[in-house]
Amino acid sequence: MPQKKPSAKAKAKKDPARPLKKGARVNYDKMALALHKKMRGKLEVVSKGSLKTRDDWSTMYTPGVGAVSSHLAKKPKDAREYTIKRNTVAVVSDGSAVLGLGNLGALGALPVMEGKCAIFKEQANVDAFPLVLDTQEPEEIIKIVKAIAPGFGGINLEDIAAPKCFEIEERLKAELDIPVMHDDQHGTAIVVLAGLINAAKVVGKKLEKMKVVIVGAGAAGQAIALLLTKAGVQNIIVTDSKGIIVAGRPGLTPHKKALAQVTNPHKISGEVLDAVDGADVLIGVSGPGTISRHHIEKMAPEAVVFALANPIPEIKPEDAKRAGAAIVATGRSDYPNQVNNSLAFPGIFRGALDKGVRDITDDMKLEAAKKIAALVKKPTAGEIIPSIMTAGLVKKVASAIK
Amino acid sequence: MPQKKPSAKAKAKKDPARPLKKGARVNYDKMALALHKKMRGKLEVVSKGSLKTRDDWSTMYTPGVGAVSSHLAKKPKDAREYTIKRNTVAVVSDGSAVLGLGNLGALGALPVMEGKCAIFKEQANVDAFPLVLDTQEPEEIIKIVKAIAPGFGGINLEDIAAPKCFEIEERLKAELDIPVMHDDQHGTAIVVLAGLINAAKVVGKKLEKMKVVIVGAGAAGQAIALLLTKAGVQNIIVTDSKGIIVAGRPGLTPHKKALAQVTNPHKISGEVLDAVDGADVLIGVSGPGTISRHHIEKMAPEAVVFALANPIPEIKPEDAKRAGAAIVATGRSDYPNQVNNSLAFPGIFRGALDKGVRDITDDMKLEAAKKIAALVKKPTAGEIIPSIMTAGLVKKVASAIK
Repeated sequence: MPQKKPSAKAKAKKDPARPLKKGARVNYDKMALALHKKMRGKLEVVSKGSLKTRDDWSTMYTPGVGAVSSHLAKKPKDAREYTIKRNTVAVVSDGSAVLGLGNLGALGALPVMEGKCAIFKEQANVDAFPLVLDTQEPEEIIKIVKAIAPGFGGINLEDIAAPKCFEIEERLKAELDIPVMHDDQHGTAIVVLAGLINAAKVVGKKLEKMKVVIVGAGAAGQAIALLLTKAGVQNIIVTDSKGIIVAGRPGLTPHKKALAQVTNPHKISGEVLDAVDGADVLIGVSGPGTISRHHIEKMAPEAVVFALANPIPEIKPEDAKRAGAAIVATGRSDYPNQVNNSLAFPGIFRGALDKGVRDITDDMKLEAAKKIAALVKKPTAGEIIPSIMTAGLVKKVASAIK
Repeated sequence: MPQKKPSAKAKAKKDPARPLKKGARVNYDKMALALHKKMRGKLEVVSKGSLKTRDDWSTMYTPGVGAVSSHLAKKPKDAREYTIKRNTVAVVSDGSAVLGLGNLGALGALPVMEGKCAIFKEQANVDAFPLVLDTQEPEEIIKIVKAIAPGFGGINLEDIAAPKCFEIEERLKAELDIPVMHDDQHGTAIVVLAGLINAAKVVGKKLEKMKVVIVGAGAAGQAIALLLTKAGVQNIIVTDSKGIIVAGRPGLTPHKKALAQVTNPHKISGEVLDAVDGADVLIGVSGPGTISRHHIEKMAPEAVVFALANPIPEIKPEDAKRAGAAIVATGRSDYPNQVNNSLAFPGIFRGALDKGVRDITDDMKLEAAKKIAALVKKPTAGEIIPSIMTAGLVKKVASAIK
């Protein structure tokens, strides 16, 4: 007996890469695996010019290209005018800290870097190319990035573990003449500050006077603490797996020592539970389970909680609300208030490339945060941060780079 | 008095990047400079997927991409299925030997590498990205290419000076698990052999029995000599700036010593003029002026001359003809018989990526040369090599890779 043929509708349902219905509950993991397999990578490198006639070949390539090469050998600065350099960013990772998933190595990092490059192009028309490295040695990473730098107008470091990410970024910023930014640090810090600017408005407090506790002293935690300090926040306490970071605590790394100098003004020591006493803001940049309702219950009224571990937040937004939080933000797209680096990095690099700046400074980062915050006309507890799909977002952020 | 406005036609004439008329005498240098400045680089990196909805973001990027990353961390070989690796080639140069122009450095090399990547995409749908290096040290180049290799399915080395290019290629071939090819060597050798196969038919000689003199023992010269040897040519003499390469000549580099072992069977020494006595084929891969009519006049009847220095050949084709050459080929697009690497490399890598081969072997190169030669149905003195625009070229060449 012949089997009944499946209907077109039933077939479509079986294709896990089918377009998603709005609001449908979906398994993003399964969807993403299917989509990636279907696409076989998310990027293409295409030619701006055609190669259809002999004259195309002679101007795009030899013999004509020789004149361009000779010109640039004499005037290397003109590479911004004659080559891809001006609009091109390298997205570099050693795969040592991929998302919140840990050390997945070069190939584990590649899908994330490809995604980032796709975002660069779609959001900001920046041509970005992923380079995933088969080494996790800081000195080697520095050497490699310096060596490949000539063809790029900027370097976006990504998913490199702390503390080596600090040294790598510092050295590259000092030794290269193009902007270098570790997005896990500064992209996150910019967007967190943008969210806090609006959260402060919603709860009717002054940002500078708020007590902020940061759970997690990795790449993001340290950068957030430093940018909030620059923004005028006076009482910041950072904690790591050993508790509150305070001057004099034995075994602090050099970067945590420096952090202890500019944070924790009352020299409090102890656990996270000690830190959150009366806090206005609690920012998690660590991992699932490090924030509980007990922490939130000890905070000041109108508590603001950013639980940013990705893909699984430190505490479920519904649990945080139940414990008394007035505003909750996460890194996820399926909850309100998504604190997402993608709000910042495309515009930051768009601006940096267009202006030809050598450095992305703290002032530019502060300005970018303000621009992002200002895109939410009337902040509410459910909307302290704009959507990544806000019209004009990239242009606004880019205008912060001067 | 108001100035007369220039007509649209006059304006178009003034735009040096205007489309070229067929057969028009043009200044390719000027055209290329104008075109490059207009385009600001010849490549774009585009996203295969759109980022229009929240679900796009969640599958192209976080949280869904995390599942792809975790999968690849466990099964790195699946990178060929889930990432750009399978279709992507790095075009790497240190700028030490750009075209025939010499050591122009990284930025001097960039326009050529971009052009090559444009050809890769337009001809063979290979996604190729240029990496120009700020170092010319062989050990550093090897280290860097190994480090960036995970995200690529193949490495095209380009415009790296001899003799270091030999060691760099050999080491990378041995130490990487993806195909590595220095195109200045092997691309050139494949296309030269293709041209000679047809030239032999036209002059009615047997390829294996022809006496071949190669002027120039750089990357191309050495690779041509070795591939012709593999093709069965028994009497090959290679010359460098000090004359004929012969076993026992003082000061030979290791690679030239090895070359002396497999060429020059009659142990002839002396100048190019001594080498060409009765030669059937003379191949110039050196620089303008190294071949004169005196050399050609000493050759056997029905002489075949390939003057491949680019952009200025060793001898003008019209002068070579006048001196008695029956067939003349150059590297230029504005003369008949253009011996152009672009006939080979797109198909070679297309085949290598599709088949997932680890190495591009000599047998594959021989086969590729035969396939290219066979595209000219009836070879004549004016057409021994197919045009780069021949339909089906890439597919044919790719089929040589098994």
